[in-house]
Amino acid sequence: MLEPSVRDHLNIGCIVFQRMDQSDFTGPFEVLSRVPNSTFYVIGRDHNSVRDVRGLILTPEIRFSDSPALDVLIVPGGEGQEDLMDDEVVLSFLRHQCHGAKYIFSVCTGALLCGAAGVLQGVRATTHWSALHLLEYFGAIPVHARVVIDGKYVSAAGVTAGLDGALRLVSLVGTDEIAQQIQLGMEYAPEPPFDSGNLQSAPPGVVKAVRDGMQRITQRRLDTAKRVAERLGVHLPCKQPA
Amino acid sequence: MLEPSVRDHLNIGCIVFQRMDQSDFTGPFEVLSRVPNSTFYVIGRDHNSVRDVRGLILTPEIRFSDSPALDVLIVPGGEGQEDLMDDEVVLSFLRHQCHGAKYIFSVCTGALLCGAAGVLQGVRATTHWSALHLLEYFGAIPVHARVVIDGKYVSAAGVTAGLDGALRLVSLVGTDEIAQQIQLGMEYAPEPPFDSGNLQSAPPGVVKAVRDGMQRITQRRLDTAKRVAERLGVHLPCKQPA
Repeated sequence: MLEPSVRDHLNIGCIVFQRMDQSDFTGPFEVLSRVPNSTFYVIGRDHNSVRDVRGLILTPEIRFSDSPALDVLIVPGGEGQEDLMDDEVVLSFLRHQCHGAKYIFSVCTGALLCGAAGVLQGVRATTHWSALHLLEYFGAIPVHARVVIDGKYVSAAGVTAGLDGALRLVSLVGTDEIAQQIQLGMEYAPEPPFDSGNLQSAPPGVVKAVRDGMQRITQRRLDTAKRVAERLGVHLPCKQPA
Repeated sequence: MLEPSVRDHLNIGCIVFQRMDQSDFTGPFEVLSRVPNSTFYVIGRDHNSVRDVRGLILTPEIRFSDSPALDVLIVPGGEGQEDLMDDEVVLSFLRHQCHGAKYIFSVCTGALLCGAAGVLQGVRATTHWSALHLLEYFGAIPVHARVVIDGKYVSAAGVTAGLDGALRLVSLVGTDEIAQQIQLGMEYAPEPPFDSGNLQSAPPGVVKAVRDGMQRITQRRLDTAKRVAERLGVHLPCKQPA
């Protein structure tokens, strides 16, 4: 569909793992698999399929150990991210790829995984609203924004922000016109039926219900972040985050 | 995460097929798999995985022949929809399920599949902008809108419109509050980096490039629509659509 106007062939890859949020991956896939002169790799620990947090089956095509050097590394999140925060196989893959990549693109709580890998220190970044206060445990600088670009580190807020981040990334690795063509092809002119997509706009009762529902995973993420901060030697500000 | 406030258990199902557009399915899955007191079925012709038009592997969990009666039937589109327009196994599944379903939800050119199954006659509907002029060949009434609800038939425009349609559907089968909670959970407060998501806003050069890239599939869809119109006995208006 698109005229090739990306000069060098790009290797783009996304890791998949158990209990991830599938949209953190499939949203960016929709956009970035359409970049001209690129290959998109779906990468897993092994060749086995995984299930996302709602049960969707996702199947990697290559293993960490077989992955080429990636120009763009996508790191999705979701509840399953918690299980990987001390997983040296995953973390060393991220560190290794981040070192050579042109861009690292975290979506949602994929930022916490990048943080645990130690690649966020001193980096301005965003993540899902429920986890934004955790970024400083990894030495990152939390920014309240839908997409944050700091050098080669691109981060998107929760789940659907991956679409916006991916289109921004197309501009970075290609051109604005390619991004606009992809946007038109996927008819991305959103009309959310409610104004309930972030903490500022959602009705208080809705915020409370969702916060309550996420209390357990948020507490677990905080405990993990504190442990990882020690491992990374990150010194926190005196005040405890909210 | 959500308080159950859908009274009766809902069976929600989506078909998957070769060369579909994965986002037509994964967008609505993100939303509708979170409806309380529901089960989401990923349904295929058989148990074999399929690849979406960009190569993503999708794996059905049940076959058409094993599907329970669905309360909500989701019909995605994408280029592969063309190969099913005369496929009586698929079309009879759609007809059979549409008969009993509370809602039929087409995304993108999934509307053409519904049309080929003959369930769109006299129905107001939308589809991907490149195919809107084809709806009348199936006896449907094309409506230029992101989401159209006509009785039990809900249709969304191209690809990402499935998110908006799915949230509307949650309000219909559940409550506005459930839809708002899901929207906040997925942080759906979109900020597209360009105003290029539809024909009205995209720069002319972008529209031309995307139209040119889709010329072949659009012509093929027109030829098919004409043939299906004859089969359905749909009498077209005198003027030829653009």
